[in-house]
Amino acid sequence: MDIRTHEQAGPKGSDQELAGGEPVRVILLGSTGSVGKSAIDVILQAPGRYKVVALVANSNATLLAEQAKAVRADCAVLADPAQQPVLEQMLAGSGIETGTGRGAVLEAVDRPAGIVIGAIVGSAGLEPTLAALKPGRTLALANKECLVSAGDLFMEKVRATGARVLPVDSEHNAIFQVFERHNADRIDKIILTASGGPFRTLSLEEMARVTPQAALKHPNFSMGNRITIDSATMMNKGFEVIEAFHLFPVERHQLDILVHPQQIVHGLVQYTDGSLLAQMGAPDMRTPIAHCLAYPGRMETTVERLDLAKAGSLTFEAPDLMRFPALALALSALDRGNGATAALNAADEVAVGAFLAGRIGYLQIADAISHAIETADKAGLLVPQAALGHVLEIDKLARISAEQWIERAGVPI
Amino acid sequence: MDIRTHEQAGPKGSDQELAGGEPVRVILLGSTGSVGKSAIDVILQAPGRYKVVALVANSNATLLAEQAKAVRADCAVLADPAQQPVLEQMLAGSGIETGTGRGAVLEAVDRPAGIVIGAIVGSAGLEPTLAALKPGRTLALANKECLVSAGDLFMEKVRATGARVLPVDSEHNAIFQVFERHNADRIDKIILTASGGPFRTLSLEEMARVTPQAALKHPNFSMGNRITIDSATMMNKGFEVIEAFHLFPVERHQLDILVHPQQIVHGLVQYTDGSLLAQMGAPDMRTPIAHCLAYPGRMETTVERLDLAKAGSLTFEAPDLMRFPALALALSALDRGNGATAALNAADEVAVGAFLAGRIGYLQIADAISHAIETADKAGLLVPQAALGHVLEIDKLARISAEQWIERAGVPI
Repeated sequence: MDIRTHEQAGPKGSDQELAGGEPVRVILLGSTGSVGKSAIDVILQAPGRYKVVALVANSNATLLAEQAKAVRADCAVLADPAQQPVLEQMLAGSGIETGTGRGAVLEAVDRPAGIVIGAIVGSAGLEPTLAALKPGRTLALANKECLVSAGDLFMEKVRATGARVLPVDSEHNAIFQVFERHNADRIDKIILTASGGPFRTLSLEEMARVTPQAALKHPNFSMGNRITIDSATMMNKGFEVIEAFHLFPVERHQLDILVHPQQIVHGLVQYTDGSLLAQMGAPDMRTPIAHCLAYPGRMETTVERLDLAKAGSLTFEAPDLMRFPALALALSALDRGNGATAALNAADEVAVGAFLAGRIGYLQIADAISHAIETADKAGLLVPQAALGHVLEIDKLARISAEQWIERAGVPI
Repeated sequence: MDIRTHEQAGPKGSDQELAGGEPVRVILLGSTGSVGKSAIDVILQAPGRYKVVALVANSNATLLAEQAKAVRADCAVLADPAQQPVLEQMLAGSGIETGTGRGAVLEAVDRPAGIVIGAIVGSAGLEPTLAALKPGRTLALANKECLVSAGDLFMEKVRATGARVLPVDSEHNAIFQVFERHNADRIDKIILTASGGPFRTLSLEEMARVTPQAALKHPNFSMGNRITIDSATMMNKGFEVIEAFHLFPVERHQLDILVHPQQIVHGLVQYTDGSLLAQMGAPDMRTPIAHCLAYPGRMETTVERLDLAKAGSLTFEAPDLMRFPALALALSALDRGNGATAALNAADEVAVGAFLAGRIGYLQIADAISHAIETADKAGLLVPQAALGHVLEIDKLARISAEQWIERAGVPI
């Protein structure tokens, strides 16, 4: 077999960057969040391999300063201008530059770098992540809004710049790992797995009585409050299908969801010859982050190796759209285009907040979102996106109309 | 993402051969066997894509003639010289050349072709499959003896000719599909899955009483008698580990076995970043054959698509070497080198035959093989293979000594 006979092609030369010897310049956007912290850990596990040009976060000066010292970053930037004195004080004498405010964030994104990790959460990530797209650069993308709210716009800029986008999200990263680009026309479908959340087996009647406390218990990953509720409603999986549609060259009908409570298989690609390729792993974000950082090579991480004999059993079932109306809503929004998915995301944030505050029932989350999408449609906003301003307008309107619906129709739990 | 932005690289151009327009010239060795029949089916599913240069079989003139007409082969050859008149008569007026005997087989292998499918079963496959290795050619390998009995010799010729070897066996093909050659140094281990056979849960006491009839009931694939017994004893998995050692650039300790009764996951590769990649599929040999024929592209087949939601549950467990002494024997033979694995294979054929004939008990299969390996060792034969003659000498001695042990120590069931 050629893989044994051509061994010279393998060892160490596997990684372009490593072979070159020069450390790869990295900018990390959202460094104090969950993905950002994992990225710091991965970078620290590969000493000398990455040069951190800039760390960017929102307002956590203490953690940012600590991280900047640990990875010896050139500069540390916070979006919140009020943090300037604190940050300066914490990094005094370290030789690390500091900056705060929108301008400083955009200046940091503009520095020369080979890889940008885009891990800012929410709409705040849109502008800097879009700005990160440049010719010759790799963007390791972990911001949902870039694809769910601004997918058309974002992918247009990806095409225009020729930047390479690698997905950090474990499901999309899994699919990317087994997606043979040269066989894109020989793919039947791509499959995202879903834990099914804590209410996988509840009836609709039981769901109607769900409390925020019950919904916040997610079986595997430990996550933020909103994403935990989005996992329970499976809206999160809907967002991921929308992201996958933009990320991979497949049609809408080629995107599938499989409920897999153990969350060991993260994603699969079905080929026309009958092969089904899958990526599995322990539920640890450091694996997809490491994959993006080393791609097309791979690196060594301390992530726990998966022992399938120990795992014992992997189970799979089809998702039930009747019991997961939020998922059905997301799939329908994808069919209606990027204006609808932008409204979906904004309204979901408002509705989930209202549920967590006890203002609406669990099943009303989907109702509030549905109302917001219809309102945006009536306002004539569900048209192809021309600019970031348009996306932000839909976002704003959807939030307002979701809030209005909640005030009018909300039935407290 | 580049996979969406560079779509021009994808459609149809995915397959080098197809892009060129010229059909790929194929020689099929062992066309009337189980793999051969599946290969004929796959070729018929891709009209115009392959030109069958030669079909070679042992003695089944009727089926060979039928196949030759179906795929419009240039020539049809049987190893058995006695079949010449029958074959000639069956193909009279068809314009298809016929030939019989060793010389005709080797002449057929020598014809210009891009792909040779080496699917002759047993030691008879050694000479023609070795002869099939030529510069610029792809060998889709489905003959066990080339690697288990003559692995050193075979791989030496692979290196010398630069021929590309693609594994047809479902486990090795699965591993090949997710084995990133450029990351060979970032692989922790490769994992072959095993059904565990019909006696997966039996105690050694229960195994001692196993009859040939009980052993011939294999849960998934329908196979020949010897391979069915080899699956029950897990000797077959031992052979596959030996083959994998030769096929992939990994060390002995990187080869692992996982018992997986459903036989849906065929093989896995564990990377150092924590990713575990797997190939799954319905148990149908046409998928790996199609993969080999179209590689690095893929083709469309009528193989049933795997529905994991329908499969429901996949289970895994570690193999128990205490209850599967044949597997332990194979792994130990691998440690002792290719002379030992050649003796292992030859003695296993004799011992399985003796068990099926009721001459020895089920657990005596491993004892007979162990005796044959020790005899070959004492005769000084377990040294690196210099030539095919040496391999055949070990093969012959192992058969004789296994038979002698069976006559002396066999306890009929």
